[in-house]
Parts: sequence; structure tokens; C-alpha cells
Amino acid sequence: MIPQTNFVPPFNVTRASHIVLTTRDLAASKAFYTGVIGLVVTAEEDGIAYLRGVEESAHHSLVLREAQGEPVCERIGLRVLQDRDLDQAKAYFDAQEIPARFVDVAFQGKTLHVSDPEGVPLELCARMPPQPRLHDQFQLHKGAAALRLDHFQLLVPDVVAASRFYTDLGFRISDYFVDRPEDERPLGIFLYRKSNPHDVVFLTRPGPVMHHFGYIVADVQVMFRALDTAHNIGFSRCLERGPGRHGQGHVLYTYLRDPDGHRVEILPAAIQMGDIEDEPVRWHRGNRHAWELPPPRSWLYEATRFKDVAVREGAMGHGLKSLEDFLESQPRRGFSVETSPVPADKA
Amino acid sequence: MIPQTNFVPPFNVTRASHIVLTTRDLAASKAFYTGVIGLVVTAEEDGIAYLRGVEESAHHSLVLREAQGEPVCERIGLRVLQDRDLDQAKAYFDAQEIPARFVDVAFQGKTLHVSDPEGVPLELCARMPPQPRLHDQFQLHKGAAALRLDHFQLLVPDVVAASRFYTDLGFRISDYFVDRPEDERPLGIFLYRKSNPHDVVFLTRPGPVMHHFGYIVADVQVMFRALDTAHNIGFSRCLERGPGRHGQGHVLYTYLRDPDGHRVEILPAAIQMGDIEDEPVRWHRGNRHAWELPPPRSWLYEATRFKDVAVREGAMGHGLKSLEDFLESQPRRGFSVETSPVPADKA
Amino acid sequence: MIPQTNFVPPFNVTRASHIVLTTRDLAASKAFYTGVIGLVVTAEEDGIAYLRGVEESAHHSLVLREAQGEPVCERIGLRVLQDRDLDQAKAYFDAQEIPARFVDVAFQGKTLHVSDPEGVPLELCARMPPQPRLHDQFQLHKGAAALRLDHFQLLVPDVVAASRFYTDLGFRISDYFVDRPEDERPLGIFLYRKSNPHDVVFLTRPGPVMHHFGYIVADVQVMFRALDTAHNIGFSRCLERGPGRHGQGHVLYTYLRDPDGHRVEILPAAIQMGDIEDEPVRWHRGNRHAWELPPPRSWLYEATRFKDVAVREGAMGHGLKSLEDFLESQPRRGFSVETSPVPADKA
Amino acid sequence: MIPQTNFVPPFNVTRASHIVLTTRDLAASKAFYTGVIGLVVTAEEDGIAYLRGVEESAHHSLVLREAQGEPVCERIGLRVLQDRDLDQAKAYFDAQEIPARFVDVAFQGKTLHVSDPEGVPLELCARMPPQPRLHDQFQLHKGAAALRLDHFQLLVPDVVAASRFYTDLGFRISDYFVDRPEDERPLGIFLYRKSNPHDVVFLTRPGPVMHHFGYIVADVQVMFRALDTAHNIGFSRCLERGPGRHGQGHVLYTYLRDPDGHRVEILPAAIQMGDIEDEPVRWHRGNRHAWELPPPRSWLYEATRFKDVAVREGAMGHGLKSLEDFLESQPRRGFSVETSPVPADKA
Repeated sequence: MIPQTNFVPPFNVTRASHIVLTTRDLAASKAFYTGVIGLVVTAEEDGIAYLRGVEESAHHSLVLREAQGEPVCERIGLRVLQDRDLDQAKAYFDAQEIPARFVDVAFQGKTLHVSDPEGVPLELCARMPPQPRLHDQFQLHKGAAALRLDHFQLLVPDVVAASRFYTDLGFRISDYFVDRPEDERPLGIFLYRKSNPHDVVFLTRPGPVMHHFGYIVADVQVMFRALDTAHNIGFSRCLERGPGRHGQGHVLYTYLRDPDGHRVEILPAAIQMGDIEDEPVRWHRGNRHAWELPPPRSWLYEATRFKDVAVREGAMGHGLKSLEDFLESQPRRGFSVETSPVPADKA
Repeated sequence: MIPQTNFVPPFNVTRASHIVLTTRDLAASKAFYTGVIGLVVTAEEDGIAYLRGVEESAHHSLVLREAQGEPVCERIGLRVLQDRDLDQAKAYFDAQEIPARFVDVAFQGKTLHVSDPEGVPLELCARMPPQPRLHDQFQLHKGAAALRLDHFQLLVPDVVAASRFYTDLGFRISDYFVDRPEDERPLGIFLYRKSNPHDVVFLTRPGPVMHHFGYIVADVQVMFRALDTAHNIGFSRCLERGPGRHGQGHVLYTYLRDPDGHRVEILPAAIQMGDIEDEPVRWHRGNRHAWELPPPRSWLYEATRFKDVAVREGAMGHGLKSLEDFLESQPRRGFSVETSPVPADKA
Repeated sequence: MIPQTNFVPPFNVTRASHIVLTTRDLAASKAFYTGVIGLVVTAEEDGIAYLRGVEESAHHSLVLREAQGEPVCERIGLRVLQDRDLDQAKAYFDAQEIPARFVDVAFQGKTLHVSDPEGVPLELCARMPPQPRLHDQFQLHKGAAALRLDHFQLLVPDVVAASRFYTDLGFRISDYFVDRPEDERPLGIFLYRKSNPHDVVFLTRPGPVMHHFGYIVADVQVMFRALDTAHNIGFSRCLERGPGRHGQGHVLYTYLRDPDGHRVEILPAAIQMGDIEDEPVRWHRGNRHAWELPPPRSWLYEATRFKDVAVREGAMGHGLKSLEDFLESQPRRGFSVETSPVPADKA
Repeated sequence: MIPQTNFVPPFNVTRASHIVLTTRDLAASKAFYTGVIGLVVTAEEDGIAYLRGVEESAHHSLVLREAQGEPVCERIGLRVLQDRDLDQAKAYFDAQEIPARFVDVAFQGKTLHVSDPEGVPLELCARMPPQPRLHDQFQLHKGAAALRLDHFQLLVPDVVAASRFYTDLGFRISDYFVDRPEDERPLGIFLYRKSNPHDVVFLTRPGPVMHHFGYIVADVQVMFRALDTAHNIGFSRCLERGPGRHGQGHVLYTYLRDPDGHRVEILPAAIQMGDIEDEPVRWHRGNRHAWELPPPRSWLYEATRFKDVAVREGAMGHGLKSLEDFLESQPRRGFSVETSPVPADKA
């Protein structure tokens, strides 16, 4: 039931590139992303800050635009190899009768706007003004010292339809999951172009909405440095889930919520993929690596709306088990002091 | 309100030494402690296994005795420097009219049994048959490769009374905590003899019961290796809390439940203490390092009973906030897909 | 002076794939690569062992063939995406009048043999029988638990000529170095197809000879676990250089010599590359990240011969500074006890 | 041949406390110790800077005094538990006819000056104005973020005579080493009071001179952060030895030279010691953990003179093998390109 990759794609998408978010308080948001996640500010003008990971030569992987109202995701960016890929993309979308148009975007070369079939607003470009990589400027690193943007996770009603758009563009599927081993319909699909398991991930939910974006970090130590620093600089309650290991076993993770509620993941580097034999791996509740506590309801259900994109109803995914459900279902073990206390105020 | 340390103690207790637990399934318990925690088995006879951390020259820091019925803690062990300290201890307890008696214990030198005023059964000894340290035998290390036993945490109705017994023996208080800054009565007291913040910790609850015992590990990587290995060797659901950082900020931690429900903590090494100016640090809800999610109810309330020791009623401690309470009180942020789903079975 | 990448390559090489070495003692060699480097044996037959990194789904990235005489490198392997790329490769080499022939190789699909202009024997293939990835089977990991093969470093008289063969095939240049800032001729060139800085690296020396091959490891801890384990299992003297950081600043490293003297590097993952703006970075003695001690002469000068490939004379590279030179040139600082000792035998 | 510990010492020394060094350039020295080692400056006045590790509540563990001429060590400091221990110490030294006198020292309580029999100038104190521990202020950490001073290593002609002074004060011997297994006379002795293997270490050489002082760091990552940062802030050539593992296997290490040539070690925490059965461990060339490359001559022979203390001749220790000797003695393995190069200037 999962779509097949087109190995002769119409143009060359190379990787997840950047994300554009709005924030109600640019100063607070910058403090979070630079102090906790460890990004650096490449430029700031007109109420917009452009940030990148310490390893990135790209001008920006995160764009923060100050705006009132509900914080939204304006757009997610994909990188293509060359400008001519954009012309090929335009021709391809025109042929498919998918609306696509060239736009001017600050600090980006030629840029093409288009939406995928589930309504996710994309922007494709090949060039940004190159910046010095700062991964070896250790004296500048803060918090998680995030190295580079890795992937987006999106919630959509129809993950198969969504994924087909990308597999037609040459994306491959690293993993997908169902609930029970015998189920057919995938509830989640992981797509990639660069040589690790994820550039774009879709989960089955009402949508389209942006669930999270992920930055690669150097090791587990810096995940803790991010959390420890967060507490010290005024973001004590930013941790939502983790540290833990993903069910597919590829990688450890920590999920944080930024001051506007946008969700960002930090994760050490995942495995390398891309040989022709790397067939999509099918996961279900029986073969997942699962020592972690389940995710809280907020992680399962809360997300960032795309700007001016209506959310359609959709299924919730089968078999979602929240941390709240899990905790309630846990049997008591050993002696429980809850059975015989006197009230605290009598102590 | 916290007791004062006697700096001229009647005998020389040096550190937390060992703990004796019962298990309903010795094979499963050994598999957990060797494969996940990374202890090694020094000896096994008569249905009793003696384990130690990879760094320990001591014969055992964990004793597992197979027994039916509710798994219990039989005793916790404290090390004194020399055998003559045991004679001084006997004389001291006799003078205090505290029942104490010498007993024969396998793989231990002269051993003295006594209970603290809250009823915790202790055993003091100076000697065990020395074993080779294995900390540099890296090819043998598994799971967390726990280095050495560090401390016990006990729940008792009266933490001040409990602590006084130990401060009279020369234990110092590293930290204690109240709920609100203005509170007087300590809810938890951390006591130490060796030069880090904890050999014995008391929290206010009905008791006495054994909450957990902690092993020092080398770094954060091995906390994850323990959890990852746990999943792979059949202990997927042993994680109870963490990885996280303690509110006092001394150290990161992970709490696991063994197959019998006994709770064990693994933690990288804490800070060094012991100068005369190291006055007890007072913690309250306003000055704690607190990025972690709160502990689940099970961590707050479940514990291991001591063998043949009645549990007395007691206060629960003020201001206990469980993970369940926290999750319920969290405000929704961003778009929530819970508001508009169609049922999963219509997907 | 460095060659230009052909962005419309005649066929699709995807990455460094595998290396075939001879060993005088297969058992010792396997003990080293499994116990110290942490590879796993996929298959062994006819005196040949096939090994892979714990993350690899590929059947083998290291092939060890027992043979008498001087240990040599038989061939290095490159992966292409699909079998049809091999036909395109054959046609391309035929058109270039470069001898290339299809051969049968155990545990590989269609395989094409060809040599680069400096004489390095290559083998191209798209397929191997897929194997389970073992990166999340932590209970099986040993030593460095090497994740995957990353790159080869080769010594050749003419690095520009050598590199041109690869850039014509679509390889890009991440870095190159000269000695003095004003020098023109590159002494070393780093080429890549996958999205990190190195699949094939050339240094200027007599050649062609194989200098080392590199495996990616999870973090710095396992570099030390490899060395610590090496000592314990009988390979105390395998460390040749490091742990240190490469002058380009991309990555830390450790170099070891296997029981036959073949050199293997273990290194945590390097930076991600591949955007069109990622122009080759020029390094010289003035802009290198260089806290490490210089490499010993053995690292500078010793290498593995390719089987049946004559070594041509060539320049040594300018400005090579060995550890031996460095140590000799160091000024004395502080008091030196060498000035006034009595002989040890009078002590 | 090694001295016996007096388990009823005349007063209570608790640990290595601090070291006083002179520097020709206080600004450079502060930049090194704060930026690379990661100490923090507690106070600075009259050309003297007082620094401490991020975990230390002590006012200072390193005192840097600007002075012209050869940089020297003025004194090493030991901590006693209480002021009354100082009076007991004075009485003890008077009875032994060892000159000892109380002095006023800035930022220290009552302080006693005395020299050990080899001439090492000591200062004992119980109190310093307590400071906030900063170990959990991660946003302030730089370089190695050194936690706390751990030990001193001193070179003296007679390590047995030197050690006896300390064992009489209650120091225990964790380890000692000879050259060949059959040798009797120890060449090095490790002494401790706190519960790890080293507060004061003596090696056999002309002396007394100060070889190095060691700071505990959190893990191996920060050893590399120290070196990486060192390069970036102008101390590229500070690395002298390591990273490596000590022959006793207790701990990894890195040795750096400060701008004046004083040697400082950074090391993750060592094992815990102190049970009565922890007999001194005897090391020789046959039972050491030894994967590291040998130390360079500079590490073996260079040291810091004590102020106004004459150096006496002494033996060099048997069996010292330098990195220079080792490299020269290494056999060539594999093909060596040194045999057939053309000169670099013909390339």
C-alpha cells in the first residue's frame, strides 16, 4: 500500500532545507533557539531573524517572523541541487496542473512556491548566500549546539496520498508503521532524499499541520546541556518528551516546545541509508524498540497550523497510546504508601 | 530543625555498603542486574547470589535471596573502617540501650545487626573477601556497567528523628528540602559519610520502607546503553523515571524497577563534599533545578517493605506533584487535533 | 588547479562500499576487527571472512582473505545505485578506452572491475544480499562498535590526475590542501559522493598504495572503549595516532594498525555536505585546526601495497612534519631533571 | 618497602586543596585556565588571581601570582577538617622538631606552613570563604569546565622517605610501581586521604619539583572541548600528552602545559577507594594497562621548581621509556614510501 519511488525523478531535491515560523515575541524565541538549541543568528531585519545550525554553511534553516495572533508555520523549505532543477520543477508542476510560482525571498536564490496534495506549503530553492561553518568554533557553542536541520514531521489525513507526491519526486521510504502486525494501511511514513532515514515524515491525523522539525546534535551529552541550560536561562518547562529512543531504533531524541509552542526535536545523527536494497522497513506494535515511556497527549495531538491552510478532519491513527493512558493502566507493585497516609496537614 | 553532626563520632562508619533483597525468581533478577545494570556475580550458593559493581573490590553490594511471597528488603549494610569500630559500635548501642547483636553472615567479616529508630534494619561490617576490580576489563562490561553502590533512599514518618541517629554517628547533611520557602519542617534529608552528597537519604512518608538504592555509572551514554539493552534482553518496561536531572542539580539519573518491583537508580558521579564549610543546603520549590518532568505516582508512592518490619502511618510530604497531576494541568498550546478527528475506525 | 565536478555523471556512484585485504592470520585479524573495531562477521568460507559495521545492511564492507606473503589490498569497492549504472559504467569506460570487465564475486551482484589512472584497482557493484542492521542490538556491541565504512585514503604520485577520474564520475571535492598559503599545487584532495566530506581521499606520495580506510563510530566514548578493549584482548600496541582532531576540523579520529599492519581509522560522524554552494575549501598550514601532536613517521610513510600493482616514484608532499621532528624541535620549558640525575643504577 | 599507614593520625588531613604558582603574564595565564581548563575567577587583587573549579565551594584551588623570572610553584595546599586540626598539627610537628609556623594568607582561615622531608613547601588550612558551586550553571561553562582539584604529582629523590611523612599523617597508599616484577624499591607511590586513589603522588627523580596538578572533569567529551577551544583561543600548542589511559587503569587523562610551562592534567573521575581491605596495588611493566603511546621526554623530565627550594640530585627511575625512544624502536610495517621518493623540490 505504500507508494513506489520514482528513481528517475523530474528534478533533484536534495534535502530538507528550512522552516519559516511566526512568533509573538521574537526576542524570547531567539533566546530559546540560540541559548537552548544552540543555533546562531545569521541575519536579522524587518522583524525577521534568520538562524542556522553551527555546522551549516546555509544562510538559514530556521526563519522566525514576529507576528501577532496564533503562531503558525508559514512554509517548509526543500533544497534542490541547482537552479536549473527549479525550472524543471516548474515545468513538472505545470504539466501536473499543480499551481507553482516563482517568488522573491530574502537571502535565497530563485525560489519556487508550491503545495503538496495535502496542502503543505513548500518552497524550493538551490541557493543561499554561503556562511562560514562554525562547528569547530567550540568556544561559541551554547546549549545543544545543534549542528544542522534534519527533517520535518507533518500530520495529514492521508499519509499515502501525501507520500506519493514525494516518491514521485524521487523520495524513498525508509520506514513505515502500522498498528497491529496484520494491518495494511500505514499510519506513518518516513521519506528521505539525503542519506539518512528522514527528510519528511507523515503521520495520520487531521491536518495538514506541522508537528515538529528536528535538528541533529553531536551526542547525548549536549541533549542534557540543552535542558540544563534551558532551566538556567528561563525555559524550565520546555521539555515535552524524552530523552528517549525512537521505536524504529535509529536514534535517541528529546522534544522541546519553544516559547510559542512550536515543537523542535534534537537528536544525535541517525543511520546512513540509500543502497538499492534498502527496502522500506515495516514497523508495528510488535517489533518496535520501546523502552521509553509513551508520549504525552500533547505530543500526540498538538501541532502548529500552517498559515492560511484549513485543517481537514481525519483519523487519529489507530493504537495511539498516551503517557496518560499508560500511567493510569500501570499495576501497583510493592508496598504503596498511598494506602495508609495521614493527611499532609496533620504531619 | 535539622540535627547537628557529631564530629567526634563513637565509631567510624565509612559508606553505604550493600543491600539484601528477596526475589521470587533469582534467574530473572540476575539477568536484570547483570545484563541491564551491569553488575557481576561474585558468588552464588544456597539460592543466594552475591553481586558487585565492576569497580568494586568489595565481595558484594547487592545480595539477592530467592524467596516466595512479597519481595522485601531484608537489610541495608553500612561499612565501618575496621573491626574495632564494630566493638565500639556495640558498646555505643549498648550504652544507648539500642539492641544490637553480632551475627554470622556469609562472605562478610564480623557483622553487627541493629535497627535505626524508624525501624530500618542495618548491618555493619568492616570486611569482605576482596575481589579484583573489573572497571578496566571493558570487554566484560554490559548494560550500564554500574561502577559501585552509592546510596539508599528510605521513606520514614519522621525524617528528623531518623537523621539524628545518623548525625550522632558522624553523618553530615549535604542537603535537605522543604516545600515552600517559608516552611520549617524538612521533608527530605540527605546524609553522607563518604565524600559525596548521599549515603542515606530520608523522605517523609509512611514507613519505614526502602524506596531505592543507587549505583554510580561512568557517564550518560551507559544510562542509555542500559535502557537499550534492557529492551533487547526482555526488560522493555523497566524504566520508571528519567533520564533526568535531580532538583538539587548534583547529578543526572535514571530509575528502573527490577523484575520484583524493587527500584534501582543509576547515576553518573555526583559532586565531592566534605569541607567544614559545606553547610547543609536548603532546597524548596523555588530554587530547584527542574527541567525534568515530575515523577510518576508510582515513584512517589511505591516502595519495598523491610522484612518483618511494620509500616507506621505518616504524612505524605507536602507539595508532592506527580507526573499525572502535571500532565492533567498542562494548558493546550497550538492547534490540537483532538478537537476534530473522525473516529479511528472510520479511517 | 583542482578538477571540476561533472554534475551530469555518466552513471551514479553512491558511496565508498568495501575493501578487500589479505591477512597472514585470519583468526587474529578477525579477533581484532570484531573485538576492537566492533565489526560483525556476516559469512566466512574458503578462508575468506566477510565483515560489516553494526549499522550496515550491506553484506560486507571489509573482506579478509588469508594469504601468505606481504599483506596487500586487493581492491577497493564503490557502490553504484542500480545494476543499470554498471552497464552505463562499462559503456563509459569502453568509450574512454579504460579496460573494465564484469566479474563474479561472492556475495555481490553484478560487479565491474576497473582501475583508476593511478592504478588503484576498483570494483563497482550495486547489490549485496541484504543483512539485518544491528545498530540497536546493543547487547552485541564490542569495542568501537563501528557503524559503517566511510572512506578510503590513498597515496598516489599525482593527486590531481587521480581526482579528475573521480570528478568526471560526479565526485565533488570537499577540501584540498597545500603546504604554504601561496602554493598552487594541491598535496591532498578529499572527494565525496555521499553527503559527507570523504569517500576517497588522495595524498601526494609514491604510489598507488592504500593508506587507510575509515569507519564511523557513535561517539568519542567508543574510541576509548576500542583502545581499552584492545589492550585487554591482546592488541595493546595497535594505537598509531590519536585520539586527535583533524586539521580540517570536521571530525575527531583514532588510527590503529591491524595485526597485518593495515591501517584503520575510527571516527565519529563528520559534517554533512552537498549543497551547490559547498565549494572546495582550501587548507594550508595557516588555517588548520591543529591542537593535536603531529603524526608519527609511520603514519606519514607506511602504507599497504595494492596486489600486483607496481609503486611509482613520486614526491613526498611538501612540509610534512612528523611527530619525531616535532618532539626534537620542542624547546625545554621549566626545570629539567635531565640535567642533574645520578645514573639509575646508583639509585 | 612501602611505609605503613597510621590509622590513628595526629590530625585530620582531608584532601589536596590548592596550589600557588607564579606566572610571568597573569592575563595570559587567566585566559588559559578559564578558557581551556574552565576554571572561574573568584577574586583578583594585588596581581594575584584566585580560581576554582566549577563544582568547588572552596574559594580557590589555584592561585596565580604574577612575578618575573622563572615561573615556580610557591606552595601546595592540603585541607584539614577543622581549625583545631591545625593546632594538633602544630603540636605534632613541634614534637617531631619539624619547623612549622602559622601565617596569614588572604582568603584562607588559620594557615600552617611546613615542609615535608623532601622539601616540598606545604600549607594546611581548614577554611576558606565559601563560594557558590557553579557545576549546574551550564551556561557559564567553558573548555573542560574542570570540576575540582584532585591531586598533585611531585618528583623527589626518595619516594619512600617522602611517603612516610604522609602515611604517618594517615595517608593511605592506593598504588605503587616498580620497573620489573622482581624489583623491590618503588619508583612511584600514590597517596590518598579522600576516597579516590590520589591526593599526592611521588615519582623518583631529582627534586623536589612539582610535576603536575590534576583537575577532575565530567567526561571525555570535555577533554576534547578543552583542546578544541584551546586551539581557537590561541593555545594551539598546549597539549603535551594524551588523551590516553593511565597504566593503573583507573582513569583517562590529558596533560597540558600552561603558558608558563606549568603542567596541568584533566581527568574524568577515578575509582572510589578506602575500605580496609584496599591494600596497596603493586604495578610493574608486566601488569599495566598500556595502550597509550609512551610519554614524551618533556613529560618525563620537565617540571616546575618550588620557590627557593634547592633541587637535589637523584635517580631517574628505572625503565623510563620515552615516546622518542619508542618511535625510534618501532619496526617498519607494510610498504614504506620513504624508500623511493623523489625529493619534494622536484615534485
